[in-house]
Amino acid sequence: MQAGKVSIRMDGGPIISAFATVAGSKEGQGPLRKGIDKIEENSTLSKQNWEQAESQLQKETLGLLFHKGGLEQGDIRYLFAGDLLGQLIATSFGIADFHLPLFGLYGACSTMGEALALAAMTVHAGYAERVAALASSHFASAEKQFRFPLGYGNQRPLSATWTVTGCGAVCVSKEGLFDKEKNPDIAYARITGITPGKVVDIGSRDAMNMGAAMAPAAFDTLLHHFEDFACGPEEYDKIITGDLGIIGQRILLDLMEKKGLSIEGRHMDCGLEIYARQGQDVHAGGSGCGCSAVTLGAYILPQLFSGNWRKVLFLPTGALLSSVSFNEGESIPGIAHAVVLEHCLS
Amino acid sequence: MQAGKVSIRMDGGPIISAFATVAGSKEGQGPLRKGIDKIEENSTLSKQNWEQAESQLQKETLGLLFHKGGLEQGDIRYLFAGDLLGQLIATSFGIADFHLPLFGLYGACSTMGEALALAAMTVHAGYAERVAALASSHFASAEKQFRFPLGYGNQRPLSATWTVTGCGAVCVSKEGLFDKEKNPDIAYARITGITPGKVVDIGSRDAMNMGAAMAPAAFDTLLHHFEDFACGPEEYDKIITGDLGIIGQRILLDLMEKKGLSIEGRHMDCGLEIYARQGQDVHAGGSGCGCSAVTLGAYILPQLFSGNWRKVLFLPTGALLSSVSFNEGESIPGIAHAVVLEHCLS
Repeated sequence: MQAGKVSIRMDGGPIISAFATVAGSKEGQGPLRKGIDKIEENSTLSKQNWEQAESQLQKETLGLLFHKGGLEQGDIRYLFAGDLLGQLIATSFGIADFHLPLFGLYGACSTMGEALALAAMTVHAGYAERVAALASSHFASAEKQFRFPLGYGNQRPLSATWTVTGCGAVCVSKEGLFDKEKNPDIAYARITGITPGKVVDIGSRDAMNMGAAMAPAAFDTLLHHFEDFACGPEEYDKIITGDLGIIGQRILLDLMEKKGLSIEGRHMDCGLEIYARQGQDVHAGGSGCGCSAVTLGAYILPQLFSGNWRKVLFLPTGALLSSVSFNEGESIPGIAHAVVLEHCLS
Repeated sequence: MQAGKVSIRMDGGPIISAFATVAGSKEGQGPLRKGIDKIEENSTLSKQNWEQAESQLQKETLGLLFHKGGLEQGDIRYLFAGDLLGQLIATSFGIADFHLPLFGLYGACSTMGEALALAAMTVHAGYAERVAALASSHFASAEKQFRFPLGYGNQRPLSATWTVTGCGAVCVSKEGLFDKEKNPDIAYARITGITPGKVVDIGSRDAMNMGAAMAPAAFDTLLHHFEDFACGPEEYDKIITGDLGIIGQRILLDLMEKKGLSIEGRHMDCGLEIYARQGQDVHAGGSGCGCSAVTLGAYILPQLFSGNWRKVLFLPTGALLSSVSFNEGESIPGIAHAVVLEHCLS
């Protein structure tokens, strides 16, 4: 079951059998608008503060996952979930009403990769028939947590990314959720391998250029992945990072090129897909746990379910900083967790 | 492999084959002093700030675990780790040098339970031969994160607990680390089941009485545990919560008594073991991720390894709050993850 040093191969692994996404109005104006299940025009979600708004995003997304999957209380055994806020308060208050055993995760913006990896490990081992994985972020709660009060109206450099307001959730299960005979054409995405990431610190210190801080982590995970699975980039229709943005993407492409493992043409970054490059003023791209989580549900999984894509490597990327560590002059380490997703028939 | 609704039974489960603890001077003056591997008299650990000090605790503890277990780079496949600080900065900067694939976890003070549960699931499923689980806290970094600057010298009510400065790490493995023939008498602790906890929110709002906020979560996990494993408190020599303290312990004992499942006499709380009740001014007891993690290594595991205790339920407890959620008037939900630990011969 082990593959190489850090990866786990999951032949006949579990499937992503259902997914749901809820996002904000800016995301709803972007290229993925048709794939997002629910768009919240009011960024407060009618709540009293941004943290409650983000919790509400989680609540709605998880509720929608249950609805779309035809799931009832008791059908989901464990929840793997996290967000960007200190002490994961968006998660604690977002999912409490579902009364699910919770594994709280923090991988910065890589959290959806971490959650998917652990969810897949849990189901593949037979510990559960069905579990859920979820991650969220909210532009305003993240600005408050990491940067400046919105009222300051401070300018952002062009290297900065825009935190996605959104949440994505998936059901990872052993079997499909719907009757095969009644739904003969239904397809899923199968998780057939994972490569958990290490903390990679190259000493980057610019919190307004997190793509540069995360690209070396994506690079590290990719190298381990190709080594452990004895394959190269050509194995995948798409290699999809979480939120490197324009600058981080360029760095990763260059690093891979130098290793003789070019991913140019195959590489896709969720942060560059979720907003329009022209007309939506997000500078270097989108970011946040919600960036890869929403893009997974609104774009990647539909492509895999339909068979348009056969096999992709989903690689959410995270920048491990807090306002405390940053203000104390620390560097910004990165981490990236990779999950292999394959088209599969029911 | 599933047991009831939320638990996992692990017959012939993995073992805790090595452990290490590093703690501060106050902990070093307490009853567990002889069990703590290394006591740091200087609470800054000669670092520039409290966060760096906590990272250093992690670095030393993980290094010591490698040393005590005779482990080398490559022997540990994954690390499950976390701390109390926003965005887990103690962990990101504490363990980076070990270049281990990291699953970052946040379960507040229950993190050692969450880490042990996932570590056990990973090894028991055959995904790895050996993994490590680790959790830390530091009195001063926690005060800074959650309460007031130390320089204010603010008074703490008697219901408040004292955050443990310390880190505990364990190696969870399929086999023992030492040659059986050369070490015929060596014994371990086997992990034979887990009951991951749910977020339980009874609306408690007093951040200076976190035992009261966490006791209902411990109660909830205990009820699920006894139901899933079809057993009662008499199954265990000790039922060990993380950091309920005097008040939380009383509440838990009363709740269990009312359910006809008295744990009085069998119950032990790490927060009430790590400091002397007389002479060490900690008010309601110790708390923090480090409280259960240090007590595990300094007291619980030695009792299990020696066979003094046959079987215990280790149940770290967490209070899910941040200064943001608290200041916004939110309640303080709790969570508690249970792990069954049994004495076993090599």
